[in-house]
Amino acid sequence: MIGAIEAGGTKFVCAVSDNSLNIIERVTIPTTHPEETFDSIFNFFDQYELKAIGIGSFGPINVNRQSETYGYITSTPKKLWRNIDFLGTVKRRYNIPIGWNTDVNASALGEITLGAAKGKSSCVYITVGTGIGGGAVVNQELLTGFGHPEMGHLLVPRHKKDTYKGVCDYHKDCLEGLASGPAIEERFGIRAKNLPEEHEAWEIEAHYLAHAAMAYTLILSPDCIIFGGGVMNQKHLLDLIKVKFLELLNDYVNLPPIDEYIIPTGLGSDSGIVGSLLLGKSQLK
Amino acid sequence: MIGAIEAGGTKFVCAVSDNSLNIIERVTIPTTHPEETFDSIFNFFDQYELKAIGIGSFGPINVNRQSETYGYITSTPKKLWRNIDFLGTVKRRYNIPIGWNTDVNASALGEITLGAAKGKSSCVYITVGTGIGGGAVVNQELLTGFGHPEMGHLLVPRHKKDTYKGVCDYHKDCLEGLASGPAIEERFGIRAKNLPEEHEAWEIEAHYLAHAAMAYTLILSPDCIIFGGGVMNQKHLLDLIKVKFLELLNDYVNLPPIDEYIIPTGLGSDSGIVGSLLLGKSQLK
Repeated sequence: MIGAIEAGGTKFVCAVSDNSLNIIERVTIPTTHPEETFDSIFNFFDQYELKAIGIGSFGPINVNRQSETYGYITSTPKKLWRNIDFLGTVKRRYNIPIGWNTDVNASALGEITLGAAKGKSSCVYITVGTGIGGGAVVNQELLTGFGHPEMGHLLVPRHKKDTYKGVCDYHKDCLEGLASGPAIEERFGIRAKNLPEEHEAWEIEAHYLAHAAMAYTLILSPDCIIFGGGVMNQKHLLDLIKVKFLELLNDYVNLPPIDEYIIPTGLGSDSGIVGSLLLGKSQLK
Repeated sequence: MIGAIEAGGTKFVCAVSDNSLNIIERVTIPTTHPEETFDSIFNFFDQYELKAIGIGSFGPINVNRQSETYGYITSTPKKLWRNIDFLGTVKRRYNIPIGWNTDVNASALGEITLGAAKGKSSCVYITVGTGIGGGAVVNQELLTGFGHPEMGHLLVPRHKKDTYKGVCDYHKDCLEGLASGPAIEERFGIRAKNLPEEHEAWEIEAHYLAHAAMAYTLILSPDCIIFGGGVMNQKHLLDLIKVKFLELLNDYVNLPPIDEYIIPTGLGSDSGIVGSLLLGKSQLK
């Protein structure tokens, strides 16, 4: 059996699967104080005999094996979770192999293995919700370098009608600061899910997300870009992003057909937990 | 013996080396009409018995082996070179293994194998000159996906004092449009190499290049970013970029020390030709 933790800023999803990734049980745990949250996680996993665990965590996290704080959550805006030894805490409870990466890298792995990017050798996964984050698979490997991508904090050109100051604690008007769910809500006074399709918000939102897709394209040249997260539940948004993106690119590089390039998730809200199971499974090889 | 072609927009450098990459002879050929340029290349290589050739070409080029136009230069602003079957033309003359990638990916390969990024597992190489281009090595492999990176055409936030329209044929005010040598010259009426160190141009230039470094960092998380190209011969520029970059990043992610992260080339103007020889040599394995 394999365990998985998808650690998000508002909730943790934990799951246990067999070796073929059939999920046997899953629970959702609110993200509160680390001690309390870990107690709930351990209560769940203690019922099973696990061979490996995969963790996909919100970030920034330390993925540098040479570092003394490898396995820590680092400079997150969630103050209670800053400098928490996530991997070590789980490792001390269950002395088994543990895969460790960001939630969005896990999602990219889930989507390229079993979801919308199945069969491809590269993809970007971006989630647009409470925060914005991105992960990627390049040459069939998870994208890590000195650290991991933080694609949600890209600095993007302003929409010419947008004077909103931005909501990011670190960069004010980065992509997350301007286009995350809380930014939409603060700017327009309505939650994204309640904004009507014809509201000007969507043209502004599409501007920022198209700029993100443009940067990912020009820097990574992936086989596809997958948009997930709560804000993308407004289904008309994806088409607006495609139109803006093609305008910005102006035919400069060859791409797959746009409807195969900028695409929705194949696993829906399960990308992260499936990817985390895959991270766990990869430790058994 | 290994042959190499570093194909640039203004000149081609061709070289021949032994198997240890000691360069035996090199020539520089102006980039004129393709037929004339290829004649000069063949005149040079015909003197040697080559086992393999590496080509690092200006782009965009087609690096997708599944494509019918694999090996072509595609939508380049240099009209004479648009839709030219570069790889095929060389392959028909010398029926030997040929490595094919962008000039900047070749430079990244040169720098990580024998230059400033030696021993690292990832790097970005960016050249700032007549154009701006970037290449990368990720997990010790050249970064390619559906196509290749076109990092010079990033869309970056405007410097607040800069109203210059931009020089890029495709995107007007992308990074290349605002920060390449021709953009500096048209905006200020002086060639970059003749602009004094205290000129306001450098603060504007550093703004754009720091934004580029920020995007490469947030999307790729490389071990280092290497700045090369003619504009970087103004040695004070690199320090200005570092200062701006750290301001923008605002301590959000852990990085290597800045003087080991944003760095000059190790191979100087030889990154591209050395990388092209390496592309050739890699075909012999």
